[in-house]
Parts: sequence; C-alpha cells; structure tokens
Amino acid sequence: MAHTLAGRPETATQAKVLKLLRDEGPLSRVELADRLGVSRTTMASEVSRLTELGLAEGAGPAASRGGRRSTLVDLSSDVRFVGVAIGATTVSVALTDGRLTVLGQRSVDMDVRLGPEPVLARALELTHKVLAEHGVTRPAGVGVGVPGPVDFHGGMPVSPPIMPGWDGYPVRDALARELGCPVLLDNDVNVMALGEQHSGVAKAARDFLFVKIGTGIGCGIVVDGQLYRGVDGCAGDIGHIRVEEFGPTCACGNTGCLEAFFGGAALARDALAAARGGRSPALASLLAEKGENGELTGADVAAAVAMGDPYSVQMIRDGGHRVGWVLASLVSFFNPGLIVIGGRVARLGHPLLAEIRGVVYRRSLPLATGNLPVVLSEMGDDAGVVGAAALISDAIFAAP
Amino acid sequence: MAHTLAGRPETATQAKVLKLLRDEGPLSRVELADRLGVSRTTMASEVSRLTELGLAEGAGPAASRGGRRSTLVDLSSDVRFVGVAIGATTVSVALTDGRLTVLGQRSVDMDVRLGPEPVLARALELTHKVLAEHGVTRPAGVGVGVPGPVDFHGGMPVSPPIMPGWDGYPVRDALARELGCPVLLDNDVNVMALGEQHSGVAKAARDFLFVKIGTGIGCGIVVDGQLYRGVDGCAGDIGHIRVEEFGPTCACGNTGCLEAFFGGAALARDALAAARGGRSPALASLLAEKGENGELTGADVAAAVAMGDPYSVQMIRDGGHRVGWVLASLVSFFNPGLIVIGGRVARLGHPLLAEIRGVVYRRSLPLATGNLPVVLSEMGDDAGVVGAAALISDAIFAAP
Repeated sequence: MAHTLAGRPETATQAKVLKLLRDEGPLSRVELADRLGVSRTTMASEVSRLTELGLAEGAGPAASRGGRRSTLVDLSSDVRFVGVAIGATTVSVALTDGRLTVLGQRSVDMDVRLGPEPVLARALELTHKVLAEHGVTRPAGVGVGVPGPVDFHGGMPVSPPIMPGWDGYPVRDALARELGCPVLLDNDVNVMALGEQHSGVAKAARDFLFVKIGTGIGCGIVVDGQLYRGVDGCAGDIGHIRVEEFGPTCACGNTGCLEAFFGGAALARDALAAARGGRSPALASLLAEKGENGELTGADVAAAVAMGDPYSVQMIRDGGHRVGWVLASLVSFFNPGLIVIGGRVARLGHPLLAEIRGVVYRRSLPLATGNLPVVLSEMGDDAGVVGAAALISDAIFAAP
Repeated sequence: MAHTLAGRPETATQAKVLKLLRDEGPLSRVELADRLGVSRTTMASEVSRLTELGLAEGAGPAASRGGRRSTLVDLSSDVRFVGVAIGATTVSVALTDGRLTVLGQRSVDMDVRLGPEPVLARALELTHKVLAEHGVTRPAGVGVGVPGPVDFHGGMPVSPPIMPGWDGYPVRDALARELGCPVLLDNDVNVMALGEQHSGVAKAARDFLFVKIGTGIGCGIVVDGQLYRGVDGCAGDIGHIRVEEFGPTCACGNTGCLEAFFGGAALARDALAAARGGRSPALASLLAEKGENGELTGADVAAAVAMGDPYSVQMIRDGGHRVGWVLASLVSFFNPGLIVIGGRVARLGHPLLAEIRGVVYRRSLPLATGNLPVVLSEMGDDAGVVGAAALISDAIFAAP
C-alpha cells in the first residue's frame, strides 16, 4: 500500500521546506537553500532526511541556472490529508495531496442540530468512502471545521449557539481514535480563512479578514500570515456585534445582533414572512412550489433576486448595509490589507458586495481604505475542506 | 562625560539579553543562559561583548543557587532614553535610564494646532533642558508620540484630523538631525500601549487593548506581545467608529463617530452648552469663575461630577455607554485578554469604568468575557513618555 502515515519533520528547516513545497510546488535544492538562508550542504542533507522520512521526493531536473543542473524537490506523492467541513446544514469531506489539491470529495445535507454522534458517524462514513475510492489506508492527518466556537487546545466546541448537544463533546479525540491519525478541530470560519490563504484570493495577503456569511456570520483573522484565535479562541465572533439597539432576538439571547438581521437563517425567516404577508409575489410563488409546510432558503432569495423581485433585492441591500457598518468599524480598528467575503449567502454576489463596499469605503478612515480590496471568495464550498486540510498540514509540517 | 551614545547589539542573543534586563532587571549569567536556552559559555561571551559595547555591566554577586556564585548582569548605568509625548494640548519630555525608569520630566501646555515648527522647537527645548539637568550629552535614542495617524516607516503624520499643518511633516528626521541620535515616531495611543506593557497593568498580558480617551479616542493593539499597527499603520482608529446613524459632525467629516459624542473635545463642548443653557448649575458656576470667553474642559466636568451634579454624571454615563458598545464589538472580534482604559478623560474614574464594564460584559460573547479584566490605567501621564522611551529602546535593543 503506497499511502501510509508519513513521518514528521525533525528540524525547523525541514518544516520550512515542507511548507514551501506545499505552498509553492517543486523547488530545486539551490532555491530552497537560498530561500531559507541555509548552506547548500545543509539543505542537501535536510532534503535527504525528508526523503528517508517519506515526506519529500525528487521531481526531475530543475531549469538550468548555469553551472551544474540542480534537481527539483517535491512533496512525497504519498502524502494525503483529509479536510472535513461540518456546516449548519451540510457535511463535506475532501481528500487532498500534500499540496492540498483536492483529489476527491463527498458531501451530504445534514442538520448539525442532530447532535455529535450521528453527524460524526456520517462524517466518518464519508471519510472512509473517499479514502477507499483513492486507495488510501491512513491519511497523514485530518482537519475538521465546525460552525461554532471551539476550544482549540481542548479540541471541542464551547457553548456553540447553533449546535445543541455539541458543547464540550471531544470531537477531535473521538475522530482521532476512529481514524488512527492526528486530527485538529477549529471553527469553520478560521478553517475557511486558511483555505483562502492557501488556494484563494488571499494567497498574497499577510493581514486579512475572511468574512463568512452563511447560516451564521463570522470572521477569520490572519495577522502576519498566522491565524489569530484570541485569548480564549473565540476571536472573529462578529455575528453577535450589535448593529441596532433593538431588533429580532438572536440565538445568543441578545437583540440587535448582526446575525439576527442577516445571514442565512434570518434571510430564510424574512423571506417566509414576506411570502406569507403578500409583500413578494416572487417569494410567494417559490414557496407555493414547496407544498404545505415548505420553507424558503437563502437560495430562494437569490432566485427571487435573479427574477428582479424588488422586495428580495431590498433585503439583500439592507443586509449588505448592516454587514458594511460592522466591517467599517473593523477596518478602522484592524486596518487589514484585504477583506474576503465568503459563505453561501455571499453567493448573492455583486448586489451584496456593492452595498458592503459602499459603506466600508464611505465610513472607514481614508488611510485604511486607500489600498483595501473587498472581494468575493472564488472558492465556493472548497474553502472549508481545503482549509481543514491546511489546518492539519500546518501541524504535521510543523517544527518538532 | 559618562553618558554618551551606546553601541548596538551585534547578535540576536545580545538583543534578547538587553530586553530581558530592561524588562526584569539584573539577572545572573546562569539565569540568562537558562531563560534564552543557550549554553553558559555562549552567554558568558555574549555578556562580555555587551560590556565592551557599553550596553551592560556587572551588578554584584547573584543569590547562591549552590555551586559557584554567579555575577548579576545589569544594563549599563550609562544608557539613557528620551520619551517625548506630544498631546493635543501638552508637550511632555522624560529622561529615562535603560530600564525606562523616569529620571527627570518636563511638561508645558501647548496647542498642537500651532503646527510642527513651534511645537517641535518647544519639545527640543524641553529635551535639551532635561538632558542638561542630568548631565547627558547625547541619549541612546528618542521616542516620540503624536496625537494622530502616523506613517511609521516614513516617520511622519498622515492626514491627522486634529493636527493641522502636520500632514507629511518629517518629524522623525527633523528631530534626529537636531538631536544627533536615532528617533522613532508613532501615534500617541500606540506609544501609551507600550508604556502600559512595560510599566503598567498590562505587564503580564500578551494580547491586550489599550483604549485612550483624551481629546480624541484611540486604541493600541498588542498581539502576542507585539504592537499591531495594521497594513497602513492606522490600526486602532476607533474614535471614528459609528455609534449612531446621526449625531454631531466629527472633525473627520462624518457624523455619528464615537469621538464626536465623547472624548475631551465633545465633553468640553457639551459642558459649555449645558452651562449656558441652564441645564447644570454646577457647570454654570465653574464657567462663571473663568470670566468672559471662558471655556470648560473635561477636568471641569470631573469637578462637577465630584460636586454631585446630575447633568455631568449623566454625560459620563452616556459617554461610557457609547464607549462600551464599541468595546463590546471589539471584544467579540478580537477576544483580548485585557482592556486598559487610559487618557485624561479616563480620570473620571469609576463611574465611567462601571458604565463601560456594564455594556461590555452584557454584550460580548460570554466565552470572551469570562476572564476579561477591564481596568483603568494607573500610569497617568507617564504612559506616554515611558511608552515613547520603550518605542526607541525596542529599536536600539533589536537584533541587527
């Protein structure tokens, strides 16, 4: 069996080599030595050791730079990671190679409110299926994202508002026991930020915010290339920032939270009310198609927007406006170099983006917005699974 | 002359030794070796080199740990830094030793709106006086804080709203030329955060926010022990976060900014209106004492609060409430380990703090506030000058 558990780097230099190869692809020994500021002799022996450990391998001759031809070094083609993205309504599992390219993926619709046992059983089932399809017995590691606050060191959710039954459940250790490999758990937004950093529009950014607008709203914070989790691991919880003194009651118990006004759950609620209340013929006809007890989703609102429904367009504008106010505050506070907007509701696309940009550019300090791109994610659902694989690869490719 | 320009560390280990001695006081060679994880032989030679460079010196025998007695190492008693704190209405200069203990200090009232030439001339005059009083010909370096956004790499203010005439003025280079030593410039809030980190309540904190409520309102952000300046150097500009859709026009041109509602300038404006409008007999009598064209300040409001004036107490409560809303958002976003409230308006003390705490603890994620102290600075005016000295000492004691 080719795909077995890989070794771990034994020195800081070996760890840096692995991350460079993961993020940039094959490099020559000479380039590696130059990039990391070590001698060519040292690099030659570090690369040999990585090869012995089953983490690196040769990849043909490098382009000539004059003098003796150097050989390209690549990550071992045996290295496999798994990324598991547990969302409010879906579970997705992807198998990646060492460079976090997705080799295979499986998703199912599943309500996270069913609790940890059935959801994790399903995630394991998908994982085993994907591994079997690609002839992998044991991956190097598995990263997992869940839609709520996580005690990163403890590997478990902490009082997650939309995940009843998950509080304190040892997700990381339970999965590690079943899979027999290292597992790391983080919240879904942090994981998506890592995905954007590795494969998305944030590739060149050192300090950026990733804003997820899905069922809930959250923010991943990257400072100097590293995820910033905060003192208790709950940084980025912007869904519960107050946008108005009064307003709908939020799942957290307060009123006026951003998430209670916008995000997938609020949008579905408002769409249903508009359909039933006769304020939107487009939403009413979409609701009628679903039969008795049917419900509307963010996707239906997107469909109504595409049909030119004025009420739905106004819902998106109002929501984007409120997200914009919160982001304007965060730009003044944090002065990021880039803001990426992702998550399912973000697929409402340019009308939403235009509204967010309008407020951010008007309301933040001019110095902070002079060079600040606010862009939509281009990764779709991949941000979560690729980011989860990035999370565990960071740990596997870390210095001892 | 004993006090001349000190050398610079030549290795990363030497730099770390200097910062440890600055922050913790004399340590034995053995303790230094253990703390920095280098051999005792290496440490002995690094310390010798620091002594030759005039940066360190012996400080008597260390307490016995069994075996041969070790000698304490201290920073050279010749090292001198200068911290210059330029505020909206004052200029303060302090001379410190290598451990940032203030040896002498001078302050004058001066309006920053007079522009850079007269203000910097005054700052230089105070600096020369303090240096002469302590027999110092040339300090190791000078740190400077100004009340506005700063291009840290360029060493100049950038479009500072309350500093007309200072935009793009090369403050750092002008002072370095006059003083013949290294100079660094940053905004006053960042500098005060460094002061709190070195000598104040934030001494043990790795991730904290320092909130200054003075003429303006701003925030210093420390991430993993390092000041976070943001991509354009303007992180922490929380005075211009919107707290209400409408409200008084701010110096920045927008409406509804926190700073336009609260902070020294807003408080003085509201106090004057209340005194003239007959809403506060206490403020009216304080105003009468100042004669024709007299103005009220934050200090007068503090006096009125002490006299039990209900209108003044309400002003503080309203202001504290608005500051609390903004900080609650930042706690949800940033999950800091500590919030320190400083600046002149913060001297209104516990009524203000109580209001801020009330909102923060009620409105932020419980996980983020479980262990979150919100405290008043105990450094008073020293935070600015000590922090400015800390700023330049960080650069002088940095690895080459």
